[in-house]
Amino acid sequence: MSDLLIKNCDVFCCKDNKPDFLLSHDILVTGNRIQSILPTSESTTTPVKNRIDASGMLAVPGMVNTHAHVPMVLFRGVAEDVTLEEWFNQYIFPMESNLTPEDVFWGALLGMAEMIEAGITNVADHYFFMDEVAEAIKASGIRGNLAWAVFEHEGLEKFDETVEFVKRWQGRAEGRIKTWLGPHSPYLCGPEFLTRCAQLAEGLDVGIHIHVAETEDQVALSQKQYGMTPIRLLAQTGVLNRPSILAHCCFPTKEDIDIIADHPAGVGQAPKTYMRAGMGLGPLKAFQERDIPVGLASDGAASNSTLDLYEQMRLMALTQKFIENDARVMPLDKILKIAYAGGARVCQENDLGVLAPNKLADIVLLRQDRSAVIPRLNPAANLVYAINAVDVDTVICNGVVLMHNRQLLTIDKEKIKGEIESRLARLVKKVPGKVVAVYPT
Amino acid sequence: MSDLLIKNCDVFCCKDNKPDFLLSHDILVTGNRIQSILPTSESTTTPVKNRIDASGMLAVPGMVNTHAHVPMVLFRGVAEDVTLEEWFNQYIFPMESNLTPEDVFWGALLGMAEMIEAGITNVADHYFFMDEVAEAIKASGIRGNLAWAVFEHEGLEKFDETVEFVKRWQGRAEGRIKTWLGPHSPYLCGPEFLTRCAQLAEGLDVGIHIHVAETEDQVALSQKQYGMTPIRLLAQTGVLNRPSILAHCCFPTKEDIDIIADHPAGVGQAPKTYMRAGMGLGPLKAFQERDIPVGLASDGAASNSTLDLYEQMRLMALTQKFIENDARVMPLDKILKIAYAGGARVCQENDLGVLAPNKLADIVLLRQDRSAVIPRLNPAANLVYAINAVDVDTVICNGVVLMHNRQLLTIDKEKIKGEIESRLARLVKKVPGKVVAVYPT
Repeated sequence: MSDLLIKNCDVFCCKDNKPDFLLSHDILVTGNRIQSILPTSESTTTPVKNRIDASGMLAVPGMVNTHAHVPMVLFRGVAEDVTLEEWFNQYIFPMESNLTPEDVFWGALLGMAEMIEAGITNVADHYFFMDEVAEAIKASGIRGNLAWAVFEHEGLEKFDETVEFVKRWQGRAEGRIKTWLGPHSPYLCGPEFLTRCAQLAEGLDVGIHIHVAETEDQVALSQKQYGMTPIRLLAQTGVLNRPSILAHCCFPTKEDIDIIADHPAGVGQAPKTYMRAGMGLGPLKAFQERDIPVGLASDGAASNSTLDLYEQMRLMALTQKFIENDARVMPLDKILKIAYAGGARVCQENDLGVLAPNKLADIVLLRQDRSAVIPRLNPAANLVYAINAVDVDTVICNGVVLMHNRQLLTIDKEKIKGEIESRLARLVKKVPGKVVAVYPT
Repeated sequence: MSDLLIKNCDVFCCKDNKPDFLLSHDILVTGNRIQSILPTSESTTTPVKNRIDASGMLAVPGMVNTHAHVPMVLFRGVAEDVTLEEWFNQYIFPMESNLTPEDVFWGALLGMAEMIEAGITNVADHYFFMDEVAEAIKASGIRGNLAWAVFEHEGLEKFDETVEFVKRWQGRAEGRIKTWLGPHSPYLCGPEFLTRCAQLAEGLDVGIHIHVAETEDQVALSQKQYGMTPIRLLAQTGVLNRPSILAHCCFPTKEDIDIIADHPAGVGQAPKTYMRAGMGLGPLKAFQERDIPVGLASDGAASNSTLDLYEQMRLMALTQKFIENDARVMPLDKILKIAYAGGARVCQENDLGVLAPNKLADIVLLRQDRSAVIPRLNPAANLVYAINAVDVDTVICNGVVLMHNRQLLTIDKEKIKGEIESRLARLVKKVPGKVVAVYPT
């Protein structure tokens, strides 16, 4: 007997590498995989354990968030309208020094509630106290590619602890948890540290998730310190020989792009963060020309306000048209490919990012009943430019329903809210001299 | 007896010209005006006709949409990823030639449903068959500043008809309708036509709503045709002596900005349109330095996809930070001022755009229960960067409740949907040689 039948929805899928919208289809799920997608008229009449009436809704793949600091929802709104240097050194690094493992657990759970509400079912998270983030993944029901962020000044011993984390959680939670290594960035981890990281990752057979080339200043600093760009440093230290997520990577040189294209690396892009911080956008056109995997990323809520990839999708398309002064740039099929399949590709997940038989059953149902989504002359345009994360009605991950009719089924939001409110005053206090790191300028 | 008591909400208001957030207040409405805003603990115990429990919600002013083509929701999605010239000449102008007054009525009503759902209570609309738009305003319960768009090639007789429209509808629908004149633009209306328009507006004592300086090409064309910028042309023909809404105005010269500042004119800005069309942004910094009124605009849904000013607010802040490469640009207090009070100022409405005693009762209640709006460390940041139009729960215009618990009370959406679906095939057909105008290149 199959486990779940999603009745009578529209389905966003791919045909000849182009987005396609099937009308009135049923999706049958067995275990944690999609068994079939058939016209409702030809669909199964055999019994199933659970049925969802999805009339009028649009089924899309759960989105993959390629770079986040999920627990930072705790700091939503604390540092607004400030430079990147102030953001780090005056607000975030001091406040993060207040975090306990328990704070991180509640922050992670709130962030996962937010992501489920926004149709995200897999997140590449990069933070501290990752055992607690893993516990939150386990409890929430989504997937995580988890990397424990380490700064060089914490020493190699600290790094070895994160290796233990990798071993402890790899493949856990019904296979929903994957663990990688997470050196913070070339500006806070030097060549020796990165080399050691690459060796360990090889030994563990895992990937590496790292910030790189976020700003022009960082690239200049690397040139000054090491006589090479941060991307070249990652190549020389062996980091790029591992499957890698390059977070942001807004300022690669032309040569850097060649290097990335020759390695198993993908880029996570968060245009809302880049706009808010007055930074700059990644060279998406060049990435695409070299077929470098690109996915959407939320970054952390302290720099981004939200963990909303529908907004990021729209912003990525809008910003590309804007900077090129050309409405034809980043057309609907390209942006949809990045938003869904692209994210899965960055995280090296072959069974995610598309709705098709035998793929993992990470399925999101979007309502199409707001006036802003009427008429449906162009479903691709509606999906990119009119539908919002708030239209997410139902979320299924690994075959399990995590939200239905906008009600979270695995997470008690009121409990989280109370836990977080009781922690805020302590968390946002700046204790003189207490910081997790110093952003170099 | 007072008419409406909104119980126990947070209230966004202004204090010393800065945004302020009152917690746990009651708003009392008598007739179509706000009578008082008091702490819930000190509020009235006298009977009222209607009570709304707004616990946990945030009350904000209804937004003023300073430039729209509301019925164009009919064409949502028909022209994507195309240049501005193709957009006009290959899609919109041919398709608009299919419009009947009845089509416009149903399109207007759908657009008003969308605006109510998005917390907009007043719209400066610029379109054709404006009697039908006025009927839709009457039925929907929102306010409108309505201008009948006219091209010079339609002749002065056509323009005189729109003068009759102004007289027919001025002050109607319990005062919710205001009518202005609407010459399309200096690129489709020449000097004589504009001069006549200014004279008529003076005689009628009404304002003028016009597109101007949308692209660099338009400014170059005006220089070539008339030896002056389109803004100077508006000044010389007397248009700017009238209260004016300048739609878009993305490319004024420095001298143009001086001209605008010396006249009773304001600017409606729609950054989502500008990004999508690969155009350019207005010089907001210069407008603000000269204290030129600036408000948010949705433009039409065929260029913008949606009529969502919360998204436009966010995009305006993000784009300004982005183009200036500085996160400190367009801080929270400035963008909130544009979004609410600014829109009212552009439309020359002194009693809108702010929640305070004696102001008109255009009040929107926003839910704050999505995970993305938790915690509330910084309510201004949440309002700009995390809250969406979809969080609008309740909309009150002129003291009347138009939506409650996201249910529209004045508009039958299913009926509209059916009406529109039955018209689409005819509307999107391009009949060779049939156009409403030709966009000059």
